Amino acid sequence: MSEAATPARTPSRVRSWWGWGWADAHPDDAECAALGALLPGTLARPLPVPRVADLPVGPPAVRPPQSLAPLVTDDREVRAAHALGKAYRDVVRALRGRLGRVPDLVAHPARDQDVADLLDWAGAHGVAVVPYGGGSSVTGGVEYRGDAHRAVLSLDLTAMRRVLEIDPVSRAARVQAGILGPDLEAALRPHGLTLRHFPQSFEFSTLGGWLATRAGGHYATGRTRVDDFTQSLRVVTPAGTAQSWRLPSSGAGPSPDRLFLGSEGALGVITEAWMRLQERPRHKASAALPFRRFGDALEAVRALAQSDLAPANCRLLDAGEAALAGASHDGSSVLVLGFESATGPVRAELAEAVELARAHGGSAPHGAEPGDPAGDAVAAWRSVFLRMPYLRDGLARMGAVAETFETAATWDRLPALVEDVRTGTAEAARRATGRPATVNCRLTHVYPDGAAPYFTVLAAGRPGDEEAVWDEIKAAATGILHRHRATITHHHAVGRDHRPGYDRQRPEPFALALRAAKDALDPHGILNPGVLVGP
Amino acid sequence: MSEAATPARTPSRVRSWWGWGWADAHPDDAECAALGALLPGTLARPLPVPRVADLPVGPPAVRPPQSLAPLVTDDREVRAAHALGKAYRDVVRALRGRLGRVPDLVAHPARDQDVADLLDWAGAHGVAVVPYGGGSSVTGGVEYRGDAHRAVLSLDLTAMRRVLEIDPVSRAARVQAGILGPDLEAALRPHGLTLRHFPQSFEFSTLGGWLATRAGGHYATGRTRVDDFTQSLRVVTPAGTAQSWRLPSSGAGPSPDRLFLGSEGALGVITEAWMRLQERPRHKASAALPFRRFGDALEAVRALAQSDLAPANCRLLDAGEAALAGASHDGSSVLVLGFESATGPVRAELAEAVELARAHGGSAPHGAEPGDPAGDAVAAWRSVFLRMPYLRDGLARMGAVAETFETAATWDRLPALVEDVRTGTAEAARRATGRPATVNCRLTHVYPDGAAPYFTVLAAGRPGDEEAVWDEIKAAATGILHRHRATITHHHAVGRDHRPGYDRQRPEPFALALRAAKDALDPHGILNPGVLVGP
Repeated sequence: MSEAATPARTPSRVRSWWGWGWADAHPDDAECAALGALLPGTLARPLPVPRVADLPVGPPAVRPPQSLAPLVTDDREVRAAHALGKAYRDVVRALRGRLGRVPDLVAHPARDQDVADLLDWAGAHGVAVVPYGGGSSVTGGVEYRGDAHRAVLSLDLTAMRRVLEIDPVSRAARVQAGILGPDLEAALRPHGLTLRHFPQSFEFSTLGGWLATRAGGHYATGRTRVDDFTQSLRVVTPAGTAQSWRLPSSGAGPSPDRLFLGSEGALGVITEAWMRLQERPRHKASAALPFRRFGDALEAVRALAQSDLAPANCRLLDAGEAALAGASHDGSSVLVLGFESATGPVRAELAEAVELARAHGGSAPHGAEPGDPAGDAVAAWRSVFLRMPYLRDGLARMGAVAETFETAATWDRLPALVEDVRTGTAEAARRATGRPATVNCRLTHVYPDGAAPYFTVLAAGRPGDEEAVWDEIKAAATGILHRHRATITHHHAVGRDHRPGYDRQRPEPFALALRAAKDALDPHGILNPGVLVGP
Repeated sequence: MSEAATPARTPSRVRSWWGWGWADAHPDDAECAALGALLPGTLARPLPVPRVADLPVGPPAVRPPQSLAPLVTDDREVRAAHALGKAYRDVVRALRGRLGRVPDLVAHPARDQDVADLLDWAGAHGVAVVPYGGGSSVTGGVEYRGDAHRAVLSLDLTAMRRVLEIDPVSRAARVQAGILGPDLEAALRPHGLTLRHFPQSFEFSTLGGWLATRAGGHYATGRTRVDDFTQSLRVVTPAGTAQSWRLPSSGAGPSPDRLFLGSEGALGVITEAWMRLQERPRHKASAALPFRRFGDALEAVRALAQSDLAPANCRLLDAGEAALAGASHDGSSVLVLGFESATGPVRAELAEAVELARAHGGSAPHGAEPGDPAGDAVAAWRSVFLRMPYLRDGLARMGAVAETFETAATWDRLPALVEDVRTGTAEAARRATGRPATVNCRLTHVYPDGAAPYFTVLAAGRPGDEEAVWDEIKAAATGILHRHRATITHHHAVGRDHRPGYDRQRPEPFALALRAAKDALDPHGILNPGVLVGP
């Protein structure tokens, strides 16, 4: 075991309190207007971003005891920034100054005992505790709703952000839950190791958040989910601290870790994990293949997913999505393929995958050599991928509806599902907004038995009614997913926004078991109330 | 979807009521004596196998109601055959006529409603229900202990043994839980598909048993466990039936299936599952490499597990195990490597793996071409692997101790763990038996972060005291595993025999949650009492 250095904190760029990511990365007013011009019917000028000082943030309803005071702040700006996640729905509420119930206090624990003490105090005083990592939830996961609790504490884990130990032999690291993606990778890099978990929110989300929401990561096939890289967990619950053993695999009863993975802060606070690492890849190869017909591309992806090839990237963009990403301009769908390895070249695998895709109707690929102009489609896609949430917020400022949702289903149902979601959601958006709407689709993760489609909805909105409009569209989409028995979420989590779909999806006896587990671990019902179980 | 035919039942060879597998496959008295001669100090003549008619099986303490009577038998022989699993400890008890508490009744439900009706009746009358598949548990998983219940019902699922539906597009099948391995594969073969789950018990264990115990399967790397092939589950609980959706992956809360996988009949009765299938492999290649030093072989296996190669087989036998299997006779350890694919040749992968192993001290491999005499080590290993449990029973009849146990740990602790278990368990066996003891080791499954060692204990016993002797040895082994934080079981399950190790291993808050879930789903506490939770 080697002691790992504490990573340098991400340099002090300022996070946006109301929208995605960095404050300085948001489109300015002129860029917003240009974005809006793409969607006839949006506002003439962008909505102003309110000043936090102008927002209705009242005094806190409780004070912490002396012993906990150093961990806790009641700063209005900090509290406002912790009031909401980063869904489109959250962004428009922030822009309209409708923050809902702002947390009374924000705590920054520095160690497990701080977390335990805060939970003890909150339990004794009926204070709801909302665990908070990077705050990038897009499903209402970090927001308190209702009034069943006397006060709300946002439990911000980002002061617990160290890599504590690295085991180079087993390739694993013990990491505190509050670490952000870039800081984790920076600490592992000198050891030649990586977690290779790169969700779209990578810069703005934490290890603890990934674990609590079973985040989808870097790999399009195989080990797609952070669950697979979890060796053991440390979880502070009101009923005590759960520390599972470091094991490569175990058949001793139902997996303890699998109960806490995806528990979204409702069963306990994940404070630490041993994560499985990999050598950093040295060999990479990628290509983008256009398909004239989306149906052919689906069949190609199924063939790839059912082969032994296991591409690290296997992302299928439909025509609309490909155009939006600048990856195609002729109505083609585009399949982006990538292979990588720490040990040897992967060109042969890429060639085999390309051949398989072409046998299913794919056209000649663009390569992706550095400096190769033919690699534009791959490069364009990558840069737009990270820029997308900022553009969404720019469109939101123009009064547009701009949001995504995702699901997963088996291959036998996938073509009909994608078609129904596209047409049904576009129709719902048209009804809700009175304007034409665009619904695009891409596949983000693929499996031998199915895939995870990801949908983007774009429409000029009904300014002033953004939440109601979105709720109407989302309810229609949820209904379609339910009819097809497609999951309410592949990797965005349940939070509060997905409860209607989740409650209909999960087997009732499992709900009984989960509620019982929650009551046992959280007897005062203070942990992230409303998420997963309870009203 | 195509309707799948009901598989032909495995031809009517007779199962042994007291020992492993087929009654006609057991070594006869002369073979037993020959086996015993290998271990000085064993009996001169094999213990006789008692006649069931001579065993103390009393009248049942309850009668089923008229409506359930057609599903239930009180036949003494059937009840005796359902009294115990197939561990060494069970075999010696059967040979000594110490069956413990024999179930009062054995039920053979034909459909979910039968299971629900039986659970209702049992709950109302305080009757314990022990779910029973192939009966091959080696951890006391199918045996009732204690006297907290008025009567015991063994719930034998083997009448629910049909493949109900096959989805060739998503490559999945809906299968009833009581199907035995060979019948499942026979039903899938005409479709060119396979589950490829081949535990050592394959012929004598059921899909439901695999799921309830999180069985380890065919693959030495990657998807080693039946969990990974589970698309959805149907579980009948006293609180209702849980049917999860067919999904390739989902991030909606903690996985419902992962709570029931490994629940060992304590939370509900798994009656059906959609399982992920694969095309049948057409290309295979394997080789066996001797290693002079076991430590080198461990390093070679680690390098393989941390590479991209993903061999389907990667089984390391230490010198003793290799000698026992006839795979080596010169004190070498032997690494058995195998690759397979449905789509293309795998010789290149095998060559690469062999090269990597040789770079870590492996000697020139034996190949494994059909008819190639150099392939002896691979073939010998395979045949001994399936024969091993019968030999164990033959040794048991000679009064010897012959048993296995297994674990898993991370690579950083593995060499010291294997060494301590080998020497510590041999020493405990010597103390317990007063005779020299042999403890061999093999690795059955390997992971990038660790591996699963499997140990075989052989010693002339202390005839008449077999249970006490084994319990003493096992307690010592359990203590060593605990000191190294190695799991109490990688794939044999917890049952009743592993409770002491399991209770110390699992995090206490998880135990609280599991107990609460159990109370919610099984309010009368009738489901497999004593397994996982409760006294």
